[in-house]
Parts: sequence; C-alpha cells; structure tokens
Amino acid sequence: MEFSLKDISAILNGEVIGDETVKVNHVGKIEEAGIGAISFLSNPKYENHIYDTNASAVIVSEDFEPKKEINTSLIKVKDPYTSFTTLLEEYSRLESLKQTGVEEPSFVKDNAKIGEGGYRGAFSYIGDNCLIGDNVKIYPYAYIGDNVHIGDNTIIHPGVKIYKNCAIGSHCTIHANAVIGSDGFGFAPQEDGSYKTIPQIGNVVLEDHVCIGANTVIDCATMGSTIIHEGVKLDNLIQVAHNVEIGKHTVIAAQAGISGSTKIGDYCTFGGQVGIGGHIKIADKTALAAKTGVIKSIKKSGEVLVGQPGIDVKKYFKSYAVYKNLPEILKRIEQLEEKVINLRPE
Amino acid sequence: MEFSLKDISAILNGEVIGDETVKVNHVGKIEEAGIGAISFLSNPKYENHIYDTNASAVIVSEDFEPKKEINTSLIKVKDPYTSFTTLLEEYSRLESLKQTGVEEPSFVKDNAKIGEGGYRGAFSYIGDNCLIGDNVKIYPYAYIGDNVHIGDNTIIHPGVKIYKNCAIGSHCTIHANAVIGSDGFGFAPQEDGSYKTIPQIGNVVLEDHVCIGANTVIDCATMGSTIIHEGVKLDNLIQVAHNVEIGKHTVIAAQAGISGSTKIGDYCTFGGQVGIGGHIKIADKTALAAKTGVIKSIKKSGEVLVGQPGIDVKKYFKSYAVYKNLPEILKRIEQLEEKVINLRPE
Amino acid sequence: MEFSLKDISAILNGEVIGDETVKVNHVGKIEEAGIGAISFLSNPKYENHIYDTNASAVIVSEDFEPKKEINTSLIKVKDPYTSFTTLLEEYSRLESLKQTGVEEPSFVKDNAKIGEGGYRGAFSYIGDNCLIGDNVKIYPYAYIGDNVHIGDNTIIHPGVKIYKNCAIGSHCTIHANAVIGSDGFGFAPQEDGSYKTIPQIGNVVLEDHVCIGANTVIDCATMGSTIIHEGVKLDNLIQVAHNVEIGKHTVIAAQAGISGSTKIGDYCTFGGQVGIGGHIKIADKTALAAKTGVIKSIKKSGEVLVGQPGIDVKKYFKSYAVYKNLPEILKRIEQLEEKVINLRPE
Repeated sequence: MEFSLKDISAILNGEVIGDETVKVNHVGKIEEAGIGAISFLSNPKYENHIYDTNASAVIVSEDFEPKKEINTSLIKVKDPYTSFTTLLEEYSRLESLKQTGVEEPSFVKDNAKIGEGGYRGAFSYIGDNCLIGDNVKIYPYAYIGDNVHIGDNTIIHPGVKIYKNCAIGSHCTIHANAVIGSDGFGFAPQEDGSYKTIPQIGNVVLEDHVCIGANTVIDCATMGSTIIHEGVKLDNLIQVAHNVEIGKHTVIAAQAGISGSTKIGDYCTFGGQVGIGGHIKIADKTALAAKTGVIKSIKKSGEVLVGQPGIDVKKYFKSYAVYKNLPEILKRIEQLEEKVINLRPE
Repeated sequence: MEFSLKDISAILNGEVIGDETVKVNHVGKIEEAGIGAISFLSNPKYENHIYDTNASAVIVSEDFEPKKEINTSLIKVKDPYTSFTTLLEEYSRLESLKQTGVEEPSFVKDNAKIGEGGYRGAFSYIGDNCLIGDNVKIYPYAYIGDNVHIGDNTIIHPGVKIYKNCAIGSHCTIHANAVIGSDGFGFAPQEDGSYKTIPQIGNVVLEDHVCIGANTVIDCATMGSTIIHEGVKLDNLIQVAHNVEIGKHTVIAAQAGISGSTKIGDYCTFGGQVGIGGHIKIADKTALAAKTGVIKSIKKSGEVLVGQPGIDVKKYFKSYAVYKNLPEILKRIEQLEEKVINLRPE
Repeated sequence: MEFSLKDISAILNGEVIGDETVKVNHVGKIEEAGIGAISFLSNPKYENHIYDTNASAVIVSEDFEPKKEINTSLIKVKDPYTSFTTLLEEYSRLESLKQTGVEEPSFVKDNAKIGEGGYRGAFSYIGDNCLIGDNVKIYPYAYIGDNVHIGDNTIIHPGVKIYKNCAIGSHCTIHANAVIGSDGFGFAPQEDGSYKTIPQIGNVVLEDHVCIGANTVIDCATMGSTIIHEGVKLDNLIQVAHNVEIGKHTVIAAQAGISGSTKIGDYCTFGGQVGIGGHIKIADKTALAAKTGVIKSIKKSGEVLVGQPGIDVKKYFKSYAVYKNLPEILKRIEQLEEKVINLRPE
C-alpha cells in the first residue's frame, strides 16, 4: 500500500509542509526510518533526530519550528503521537482488509453457518453446528470444535484450538496456538492412591473485545462456564483454570496462572508470573506486582500487593531491605545477648 | 442425545418421583439449569434451590423429603453426588462414541498400522512405522512422528505434537497443543563462549492412564527415556525436561517446571508454578505448595513444603508473619542497643 | 541405518578390538544397551557395567585394559566421550538427511521462493513473498506468514507459527508449537477504564544459530524489531515480549519471561521461571538462579543473583538461613527486652 502525503494529511486533518505528492508505504521510528517511511516526533528530547532522519515524512506538532535545515517533508497536526496512532490503526485496518476469502484445503462440517466478508485459511477446521459471524478471520490450523459460536469481526490466529460448545464474542482477538475450552484439571482421588477423571462438560465464554495471547490456555468449566468478561486482555502463556471468572477490563501479563473457581474483579492489573489460588475472590482494581502469589480472597478494592503470599507493596519492600541484612542483624542480637548477660546482676 | 427419566433411573439404580417419561438432554447446576436439564442436590445447604429450579429433573438422596411444593421430577438414589458423576461419565462416554471414522484430508505414511474403532480428524498426520491401538481418537492437527506407538483408547486432542520414537500408553489423554518428545535443552559450552547443540536421541514414554494438559511440553531424553509413570496427571503449560522420571499417580498443577534428569517419586502433589532443580530426587508423597522452588533432593517421604527454596510449610508461614514486621523488629533492636549502651557500667 | 565397527572406527579414528564386521544400528547407555547398540565408557566409576553390558560395541579410552572377560567389541579412541558425541552428531545428521522432499497437501502462495534440498511436510503453509533458503526443513503445520525470510539449514518443527514480516537466520532450530511474531501486549488505557489495542507493526528477527524451545512465544515489536542475537538458546515455554533484545550466546531456561523493551546482554545464563521487568538493561554475563525476579537494570557484568527481587546469591541464602528461624529470633528479642527492662535503673 502506498499513500501520498496529501492523502495522509487528509486522514489526520493536518497540513503538509513540503511536497504533497511524496509517497510513503510504511511506518518507522524516526531514528531508524528510511526512504518511503513516515515517522513522528512527539517528545522534544528526540528533536535532533529530525535533522538527519531518512524518513520521507515526519508528523510533527503544529507549533514545531525547525532550528536547522530539514530534508524530510512534515505533516503538522495538533497531537503527533495521537495522529501517528490513528495512522497505525488505519494501516492495520487496511492490511487486515486484504485478508479475505477462502484458501483450500479447508474443512467445514455440514451444519456450520459462516457469515460474510471473512477469511478462512488453508487447513482451518470448523465443526458441526458452528455459528460464525461476519468478517471473522480464521487463520490456518485454527480448530473450531462443534457447536462453537463466534461473534462478528473476531480474529482467530493460526493454530488456535477452540473445544466444542465454547462461545466467543465480537471484536475478539485470539493469538496463535492459544487453547480455549480444554478439560479442567479435575480428578477424584481413589482409595488406592490413584485418580479418576471427573468429566468436564462445561464451556468457556469470551465476551466482546477480549484479547487472548499466544499459547494461553483457558479450561472449560466442570459444569457451567468459565467466563472472561468484556474487554479483558490476557497476555501469552497464561493459565486460566476451570470455572474461573475474570471481570471486565482486567489486564493480566504473561505466564500468570489462576486456579479453579476463582473470581477476579473488574479493572484489575496483574503482573507476569502471578499465581492465584483456587476458590477465592479478588476485589475490583486489585494490582498485583509480577510473581505475586495470592492464597486468600482480597476483599478491599484497589490494593497493591507483592510477595508470596502477597502483602502491601511498600511493606514488602521495606521488609526485603531488612531481609538482605538478616545475618548482620542476627549478630547484633547475639552481641546484645552477650552484653545483657554481662550486665546482669548476680 | 435424549434420555427419559426411566432410562436414567435404571442406570443409577434409583427411583423416579414424578413423570418417568420426561426427557432430558443435558446436565446443569441446580441454580442455573433450565428445561431439558438434569441436576443434582447433594449438599443440604443448597436445598432452597430445588424449590425454584427450572431443571426438568433433580437427583436427590433417597431420604430427601421436600418441605415445600416442587415443580421438578426427582430421581432418588443412595448418594446423589456419586450418581451424578456416574451420569456425567456415561454422558461423556456416549459423546465420545459419536466421534469415529476418518475425515479427509488426512495423512498416513505407508507402514503405519492403525487399530479399529478410532477417529482420525482432518489434517491429522501419522508417520512411518507408527503403531496405533484400537479406539484411539486422533483429532485434527495431531502430529504423530515416525515410529510412535500409541496404546488402545487413548485420546490425542487437536494440535498435539508427538516427536518420533515416543511411546504413549493406553487410556491416556493428551490435551491440545501439548508437545511430547521435543529436544532436551542440551548445549555444550565452547571456548569462545558459544554453545554447541548436543544431539538428543532418546524418547518420551507415557505409561497407561496418563493425562497431559494443554500446551504442556515433555522433552525427550538425551539418551534413553523421559518416563511418565502410570496414572500421572499433568496440568497445562508444564515443563518436563529431558531424562526426568515422574512416579505413578503423581499430580502436578499448571505451569510447574521440572529440570533435567530429576526423579519425582510416586503419589506426589505439586501446586502451580512449582520449580524443581535438575539431577535431584523427590521422595514419594511429597507435597509442594504453589510457587515452591526445590534445589536439593527431598529424602523423607510425605513432607509438605513451601518457599524458595522450599521449607516446611508451617515454618515458612510463621517466618513470613515475622518477615512482614521486620522494619519494626529492627527498630526494637536499635532501641535495645541504645538502652544497653546507657545501662553499661563505665 | 546400520554401520559396521570398521566404518565407525574410521569416523572416530579409533582401533577395533574384536570383530570389525559387527553391525550396530543405534546408540544407548552402557547399562541399558542391548544387541545392535553401541555405547561408551568414559567415567571409570561405571567400568563394572562393561563386563555385563549387552551392547554390541563400546567406545573406550585407548589405555583401557579390561580386568575381566568382556563379551562386547571395543573401539579404542583418545577421548571416548568426545568420540561418542561425534558419533551422535553424525547419526543425527544422517537421520536428518532422510527427511527431504514435499508431502501433500501443502500450501504455498504464488510469490514464495523456496531453496533446494529441503523438506516441506504435509499441511505446511508458506505465505506470500516468503524467501526460504536451501536445506530448510519445514515440518507439518508450520505456518510461515507473508514476507517471512528463513536462512539456510534452518529447522522449523511441527506447529510452529511465524507471523508475517519476521526474519529467521541460518542454522536455527525452532521447536514444536513455538510462536514467533505474535502481537506485543500493548493497550492504551481509556478514560472509562477500558483499553484500546495499539497496533503492533514491527517484527521479530532471529539471527543465526538460534534455538527456540517448544511452546515458547516471542512477540513482535510495536515498531522496529524484537531481536534475538546470534547463538541464543531459549528453552521451552518462555515469554519474550515486544521490543526485547537478547544478546548473543545468552542461554535461558524454561518458563522464564522477559517484559517489553528490555535489553539482555551477551553470554547471560538465566534459570527457569526467571522474570525480568520491562524497559531495563541486563549486563553481559549476568547469571540468574531459577525463579529470580529482576526489576531494575543490572549494570555490572558477571553478577550472580537470586530472589525476588534478585540480590547476590550468597547474601540471599545467608539471609534465608536466618529467615527460617525468624520466630525464634523474635522470641530472643522479646526476652532481651524483658531482661533490659528488669535491668533498668529506676
């Protein structure tokens, strides 16, 4: 795709300083961009880059006045960062529009209903009684089990596996090799020390605008549904166990794990490698630093925790500062004990 | 699938109170179930749900006597929970029986031998000299490398990759996108600081009744076998390194990792995100709380550990209670030091 | 494949003691090997195994003199371990050569260019404008997105997903179900508490001789490239976030995670389940023990850290020794306080 600066300034409601007919075909960082690229200057501390960038055009603030000669065209806008983001989104949207149609071989069972305008990659699989919305992109190796529903404008990246009976909302994105609806980890201990598998017959429900990272796993409920509410963003390699519920607009970083039947509130933010125990509730707006473990319910909204198990973040780090000196502190105690013995009246 | 209450009471050896000809076609929680569902009431504290459930039938204890009017049919049995589990298993078994035959395109190399009664999904791949037992279900995108053996009644979910020469037992379940037999992480450091790959020519052996979670990885042995013994249950996103051995009926929760050449005993239970070092032995019946790290062998059977590295669980939490107050404790020590100096005979 | 001892001694520049015409077709540990296997004896403490091994041949040191009768043929070499490794490499190389040609159905878009001598498995997918080198092995279910470049002699194992625009070097190995180039976890918080997805338009660059473990995920850069430098070895289930850079010959164990925009130095070694915060720099030759968390830049090269957050490894373990006794230490402080009060001059 190639755009003239005239086209771009129209999208951004900006003003071109230089040649309007210059064409750009990709975006880049100001310090790395080459010919054909458009970049942006937002933070004044990077201003020096604009005097020797190779970018064909740079989006700048409307009050930007160059202090030296400039070899690139400018597009002046109100807020360069926001404008650049708008451009990225437009670029991304157009890129995405190119991906349509059906590649063969692909596999669709008889009773599946598939909406219009979407993409089905080679080697994709759609099971019995599936209901797929409009403009859904299903990349190669995506497996959509029987009775799965997928809302409009959702993107299923290559290798995603969705087990039967799951429901995926609209405007969702599921990244490569994520697994939705695998069996919950349920085993009943037997008298001889072995385990019997408890059948898992529930499903997973993803509401609208949910993003799931690559290689993340969300288990189905034993009965009922594991529910990921509207707007939740899960990073890569996350474990969500059976019957978990994650509140709307909660964001969880990579490699975190949530144990079975736990309910996470709305607007929470969890760092990477966090671990949450089973059958507990986490209040809205809870923030957990990376690697924090939680083993009891958190009832008060808005707490910030770290540690294993998690405690108030300031308290943890103050204690950790002392922890580092524990051997010296122990010596001081020993010296005190000695002194006190010597002081003791006999 | 649809069953009359008469059919179900026959399976469960129970007694129908109400209309025996009522049909049910799915199961559900008593508080959520709708028309056509069968549910159960086991814990008396949920009794109030039975008076306004929409379920078409509820399995109850033989000594249950309703205190109010009831709009649902009942099936009276000895133990409602066990009966319900039996029903789930039966349902699961019948569901599973529906999945048979071969979907095309699928790929089978010339010398593979495949038993009877199984399922091979579209886009499945079976390599040279494979030996697949009876009633094995191989879902789409399952990759079975050359010389792999799979026992009877095993289920290979979509996207599982089994590298060449591995051996999978009977009655195993491997969930979506798990990887069995990838190369062990073996590299020989060279004088210039770079690393040379050590060829990994061993395999992975899964004995019978083993369950492997979604996106879990089990590396092959450098030589010989990485061995997962009978009845082991591994959750999702677990790492099992080369030459590890896991004893029978051990259960490991999600995101745990076991380093190379370590030997885990029988009947162990590990929480999520546990990490075990390499070349050590863990005694039978060891229990590790979530996030525990283990860096030395555990010789005594039946210990319960937590922490990094793991120590006795009671000890850890008692120490953690003190840890939270370390800054205050340090102040008390400083005050003591001051007092003792003042007390000191000059 | 079958080799005579004469062939093998020629490869290893060794001397056969016994029948040169004996054939072997696999390798094994001396204590487990059976007929047809070749093994090695390097460590004298395993010498007793050579007297009752069933291996058809054993590689031994040139100065080895049996103390009892031996039933196996010997190949005498300078350094048995190195010779055995050489043999493994040769075996591995020959095994690998067997895998060539194209299996159908496979999918290649029109403008892709594919070199000579490679392998394309059934159900593999190669996108538009891809440039694939010579002797590249692309296993079943490998997805190579549009505009991806792959250097010579690289191996892409089954189920690997490479998103568009990524660049993979020569002599790389990517294990099953790894994901390269998935979207970075970038979301802009909105005033209503929801998040807007920031388009991720960068790529991932893997330099030469890089190994990526099974189910590991490397996100693309927001703009520019996530870069994995020459010779880096990543184990299984690792998370590498957007815009990360990993220096040459760094080795990272399973389930570690590196947050966005962080720069890791050369020749580092990280244990399993390590977590590194975002936007920091880690000096060359940093060693991190398993489960260590790092939240600030490490400026000095060659440090060895453990803990959350990581501190000097010796310091951590000395403090941990005291930590275990904190309740007793607290009691000692209380006793001191009591004594000091009693001592106090009134």
